[in-house]
Amino acid sequence: MRLRNNPKAYDIMEENADFVILDPESHKGKYHQLFKENKPVFVEIGMGKGDFIYQNALKHPENNYIGIEKFPSVLAAAINKINKQEKLDNLKLMHYDALELLNVFEKGEIDHLFLNFSDPWPKKRHAKRRLTSPDFLNVYRQLLKKDGLIEFKTDNRGLFEYSLQSVTENHYHLDYVSLDLHNSPEAEDNIMTEYERKFSVNGPIYKMILSDTMEKNNG
Amino acid sequence: MRLRNNPKAYDIMEENADFVILDPESHKGKYHQLFKENKPVFVEIGMGKGDFIYQNALKHPENNYIGIEKFPSVLAAAINKINKQEKLDNLKLMHYDALELLNVFEKGEIDHLFLNFSDPWPKKRHAKRRLTSPDFLNVYRQLLKKDGLIEFKTDNRGLFEYSLQSVTENHYHLDYVSLDLHNSPEAEDNIMTEYERKFSVNGPIYKMILSDTMEKNNG
Repeated sequence: MRLRNNPKAYDIMEENADFVILDPESHKGKYHQLFKENKPVFVEIGMGKGDFIYQNALKHPENNYIGIEKFPSVLAAAINKINKQEKLDNLKLMHYDALELLNVFEKGEIDHLFLNFSDPWPKKRHAKRRLTSPDFLNVYRQLLKKDGLIEFKTDNRGLFEYSLQSVTENHYHLDYVSLDLHNSPEAEDNIMTEYERKFSVNGPIYKMILSDTMEKNNG
Repeated sequence: MRLRNNPKAYDIMEENADFVILDPESHKGKYHQLFKENKPVFVEIGMGKGDFIYQNALKHPENNYIGIEKFPSVLAAAINKINKQEKLDNLKLMHYDALELLNVFEKGEIDHLFLNFSDPWPKKRHAKRRLTSPDFLNVYRQLLKKDGLIEFKTDNRGLFEYSLQSVTENHYHLDYVSLDLHNSPEAEDNIMTEYERKFSVNGPIYKMILSDTMEKNNG
């Protein structure tokens, strides 16, 4: 997701240091200390305007949530939106690039990863930028604890086809697949993103849940 | 596919012994001798009325084709249909059960397998009967030569979701996935089955092409 550049984005981040992590590297290996209680760490990469992770944090007080967003203007929009709602002590946000996350998380520090409606990068020469390309999958493998899961949703058929091949080639296990999530039994527990609510009328929403077979074999 | 029982089905098979294999077990390990020329062996399991395999055999004289059908009445219908068309010396049919195919083929004797629109067996307690369940995948693994491929098409979402999980869990590699074959670049080379032509208006046709990673590692 891209928004018009917001020159105040960094100011907004700093003004909300109670739930925006301004110095992510300094918390490596001790993210649980950032939260009121030590609970499983659920992370969304590319959180957009934050509806999905906010609703998750609200619904699941038994987990801690960290939303990560690469574009400062998008993160600023999420901050402004969250400020209009009830404050949650199990939700933090940060501005970071997914490929660099090993600078800010210890190996195995994350329990659960969400990837929602990420940029499909449809051109073949941009395939490496897709959030399910081998380089990213290799980072997730290291970030996730043993038995950790990745949940991935998209409405982009090409991205989902690519991802099915990419994840299985890179030794992830398909714990769940739906080729039409909104018409699956699991629909009632599905928390929608802003984008999902808006665009799912155009076609099916695809979803997969992955575990790391390599991790399990070695761990 | 099931048809009303045809009491003459076995007679029809015997009357067409020029292209119906009546004693499949006796050809184990020497199927190439059945054909005019020794060419790669392409097999369709559950050939139904045979349009798909007939069109393949017509289009690809460089391969030999064997259509397998479990229900005698369905095979009889295919025989009658083929008899109305040009005879092809690279096409044979047989009546057999897929799970028993190791009685009639030597290990590694098949180059390429087709599974088209097989019975989805939607009830969980019938999952073992699906043509992509572990028992079947294990038979295919033995039937196929090294680097052999399986092409699987269906319009049944539940069966395709199940199959994605089943094949990757059983160490097959996804060489190709389409979640809407008729709207994919590969559509122009797609040979349709009778069923596919009739029912694809109702929703997408799913397709995957599989290779056997276990075979490759061991072979």
